[in-house]
Amino acid sequence: MKFTCSKNNLSQAVSIALKAVSPKTPSPILECIMIEAMGNDIKLTSNDTELGIETFIDGTVLTPGKIAVDAKFFSDIIRKLPESDVDIETDENNTIHIRCEKAQYDIPGKSGDDFVFLPQIEPSNVIELSQYTLRETIRQTIFSTSDNESNKLMSGELFEITGNHLKVVSLDGHRISIRSVELKDSYNSIKVVVPGKTLNEISKIISGGIEDMMRVGFANNHISFEFDRTKVISRLLDGEYYKVSQMISNDYSTKVTINRKDLYDCIDRATLLIRESDKKPVVINISNSSFELKINSSFGKMDEDIDISKEGNDLLIGFNPKFLLDALRAIDDETIHIYLMGPTSPCVIKDDLGSFIYLILPVNINAANR
Amino acid sequence: MKFTCSKNNLSQAVSIALKAVSPKTPSPILECIMIEAMGNDIKLTSNDTELGIETFIDGTVLTPGKIAVDAKFFSDIIRKLPESDVDIETDENNTIHIRCEKAQYDIPGKSGDDFVFLPQIEPSNVIELSQYTLRETIRQTIFSTSDNESNKLMSGELFEITGNHLKVVSLDGHRISIRSVELKDSYNSIKVVVPGKTLNEISKIISGGIEDMMRVGFANNHISFEFDRTKVISRLLDGEYYKVSQMISNDYSTKVTINRKDLYDCIDRATLLIRESDKKPVVINISNSSFELKINSSFGKMDEDIDISKEGNDLLIGFNPKFLLDALRAIDDETIHIYLMGPTSPCVIKDDLGSFIYLILPVNINAANR
Repeated sequence: MKFTCSKNNLSQAVSIALKAVSPKTPSPILECIMIEAMGNDIKLTSNDTELGIETFIDGTVLTPGKIAVDAKFFSDIIRKLPESDVDIETDENNTIHIRCEKAQYDIPGKSGDDFVFLPQIEPSNVIELSQYTLRETIRQTIFSTSDNESNKLMSGELFEITGNHLKVVSLDGHRISIRSVELKDSYNSIKVVVPGKTLNEISKIISGGIEDMMRVGFANNHISFEFDRTKVISRLLDGEYYKVSQMISNDYSTKVTINRKDLYDCIDRATLLIRESDKKPVVINISNSSFELKINSSFGKMDEDIDISKEGNDLLIGFNPKFLLDALRAIDDETIHIYLMGPTSPCVIKDDLGSFIYLILPVNINAANR
Repeated sequence: MKFTCSKNNLSQAVSIALKAVSPKTPSPILECIMIEAMGNDIKLTSNDTELGIETFIDGTVLTPGKIAVDAKFFSDIIRKLPESDVDIETDENNTIHIRCEKAQYDIPGKSGDDFVFLPQIEPSNVIELSQYTLRETIRQTIFSTSDNESNKLMSGELFEITGNHLKVVSLDGHRISIRSVELKDSYNSIKVVVPGKTLNEISKIISGGIEDMMRVGFANNHISFEFDRTKVISRLLDGEYYKVSQMISNDYSTKVTINRKDLYDCIDRATLLIRESDKKPVVINISNSSFELKINSSFGKMDEDIDISKEGNDLLIGFNPKFLLDALRAIDDETIHIYLMGPTSPCVIKDDLGSFIYLILPVNINAANR
């Protein structure tokens, strides 16, 4: 194999492919990237068996061929090369000769006969949305997945398509996050659960803006993401996802309208008096036009008032402050509405357009203060 | 005690004072900042017994007094307050009441009767230089101090003043770094060894530019740094520093003139093939107008040429690449001169103005390749 390509293109492609490389594995081939040169393309493939990535770059191929190489090591070398063209050539011993300006490396490669390429999937549905929208939607929901091994479904997110709507849902037993996105076209109904790890990696490599479209394909056991010259394929999680709509009530006895940043900053300050291990809640006292937040821990006391407008009953309720912060960080609106039913019922933060719903279970204040 | 001051001033002063707080110590008072209010000033003091800091901020003092408070905790709280005025008040139980807009904290303080204030020192000499110059000089030399406990002097830097010159020297047994700085005025001769830890902390808190002057005072066992409204006092290290001038020869048999960045990038690339534990040298082959760098390790081979101009003999010599990188990073010049005497003699990188000298011992290539 022998080809030439630009250092920057190669470096960028390698960093994309790295996202599907197992960092530590008993099988060394899983730590490799497969490099293939053919036509005018260089194709990099990585596959950790759950998640696989193929990405193409332009180049001048002199001798077609393929070679597998340790991904992390190869990435480090390419990244440090001068900004110029890179020549890559392999010999009969699978040694890889890398030449760039006056620098030359000889590093060991592998035939890669045991490399597992990506499965060929035939998506039954393919939707289109912007890279920015998918990245944001993942950011706004991924924090409420659970890595509880005993409940695999909670480690993923529901992707549900109905007409021209994509709904993304995550939940971890203490809270539910839902984002709804309007698509340009209408599609057949789809309901799948995508591994959280896949979504985390995808959101790191789709760097495009609101105008940069991508395609998401759905097959029986796989989901695919295609953008620019990259294709990512991931297994789906098996099983029936939770019936979330049954868990969220539209009733409320108290409705609070509050400045999001004021509330975020106030809870953020309160967390200084709490150690994660304490599991101390923040206690919120909602009365006429005032939202009073109290913390009383072994480290000290804090007390803060925020101006609100309120409909309905007064209420005293406790929450895990981290859960409130996660939800508030995922919302862009300046002013938010919080709906409550009583001290033992979940609170719901949602907008009038139905683009997001964050449900958070309260903490029993009496039990917590015992 | 009761006073009001701006959140930003207080936050900045606390972050300065934090630099002389022991992170973990059997003596809880060393984890504290002492806050004193008097006149129109609030004074923060911290002291880890080696290094002490006093810093003042403007404020409105209603009731003079003092209180000690856990430095890290207090810093976290102040940092997260709204950008506004902060009221601080203590009560008879040494509880500290912090009020800022609608937020109120009550946190425990300490009388601080066991707090150790800064020693009163009378400097016999005080020099003036810019904050930028001192910060840069520290950055350009601190890397070749040694934290070898058995040789305390190597953990510090020599500060030597002769006339209007300040010379700063560090060495660790494998290399020597020297920076000479011209001062505006002439001073009496001074020769002291300043702890590396002190210099590290000082360089983090002097943020001023080339126009922002500071004073450095020298007393028998202490050095002081004064700038803005802050004073830092540190113990000096005892003992006679190494006679560095005897270790540096002006003779050479090979002189290389080379682009600094090209050399840096090339060595940086070579280090990818070396693990720290291997102690593999980079081997440099200097021949007519070419500087060839070779690495051959279990990870692969690398070979790169750099254009140079050369006077004198050809030479094959090996170095610890980290030592070369450290020195090259500390130099700003585009083109540098390297002076060599033979494969077992140190190389010297210095400029014609005498503003810096970096000496690095070579590695025995034959021994390393055995």
